[in-house]
Amino acid sequence: MKTMDDLFLHHVKDIYYAEKQILKALPKMAKATSSPELKKAFEHHRDETEGQVERLEQIFEILGKPVRGVKCDAIEGLIAEAKEVMDEAEDDGVMDAGLLASAQAVEHYEIARYGTMSAWASQLGLAKAVKLLDETLKQEKAADQLLTKIAASGVNAEAS
Amino acid sequence: MKTMDDLFLHHVKDIYYAEKQILKALPKMAKATSSPELKKAFEHHRDETEGQVERLEQIFEILGKPVRGVKCDAIEGLIAEAKEVMDEAEDDGVMDAGLLASAQAVEHYEIARYGTMSAWASQLGLAKAVKLLDETLKQEKAADQLLTKIAASGVNAEAS
Repeated sequence: MKTMDDLFLHHVKDIYYAEKQILKALPKMAKATSSPELKKAFEHHRDETEGQVERLEQIFEILGKPVRGVKCDAIEGLIAEAKEVMDEAEDDGVMDAGLLASAQAVEHYEIARYGTMSAWASQLGLAKAVKLLDETLKQEKAADQLLTKIAASGVNAEAS
Repeated sequence: MKTMDDLFLHHVKDIYYAEKQILKALPKMAKATSSPELKKAFEHHRDETEGQVERLEQIFEILGKPVRGVKCDAIEGLIAEAKEVMDEAEDDGVMDAGLLASAQAVEHYEIARYGTMSAWASQLGLAKAVKLLDETLKQEKAADQLLTKIAASGVNAEAS
């Protein structure tokens, strides 16, 4: 990695891989919860993630590069933690609290990544990419806020 | 994991392991950067992390449990990404931008985790633990804001 263009492209590939993994994980998380509210949030975010994948594909096109992911160790670890919760929770309330925690950790990872990438795209003069990244960033922040609201509204409280 | 107490304790162990890994990674990141500002930020946060580890040890004591970490896959992945940057960046500006991105991803993970754990501790009536967790959460948010400020002030700009 010699230039900011290399670093930016690497991160586009990294988050592309991550979004694909998230796309696979969310239906499992929706299936694992007994809370209709949380189930709906996971399903809604799964649909949003499809749009986020498409936006990344548009960025590959802007860069004139083939659409290709690269293994993202961070998302592998974050999803492994969500799987651990699904495997080990022996109570509905504990399951939901653990799923909420895992989902918010994933959202925060994405918020950090899209925030950084939007700043880099701006420096690189890639105005159209900035717009696409900011659109996704806004969705990730809203998803995180919704999860906080669900947690506060009682999913966690029921389990304590 | 049958109760919220189990889930809370598991997360205390998980973040305790994570903080210990961060304690080892930060001096390497401080060594890898050529920016005095970023070096100072990493060193300062290393010192803060020592205090955060001590606070977690106080929480183990409050819970009446032995101080023990449990492997945290998420932090392993996040630190693997930082190592990748350190191994592959061939330019000082690219190195600093990549280190900033990695550090902010770690901060966001911690912000998500401490936020969740503080909410759980509050539900569990562990007022003293809430205070300790909130103190660390405040430091993590400040560290993230400082990194954003450094990124905006030119570390990234120099590399583009």
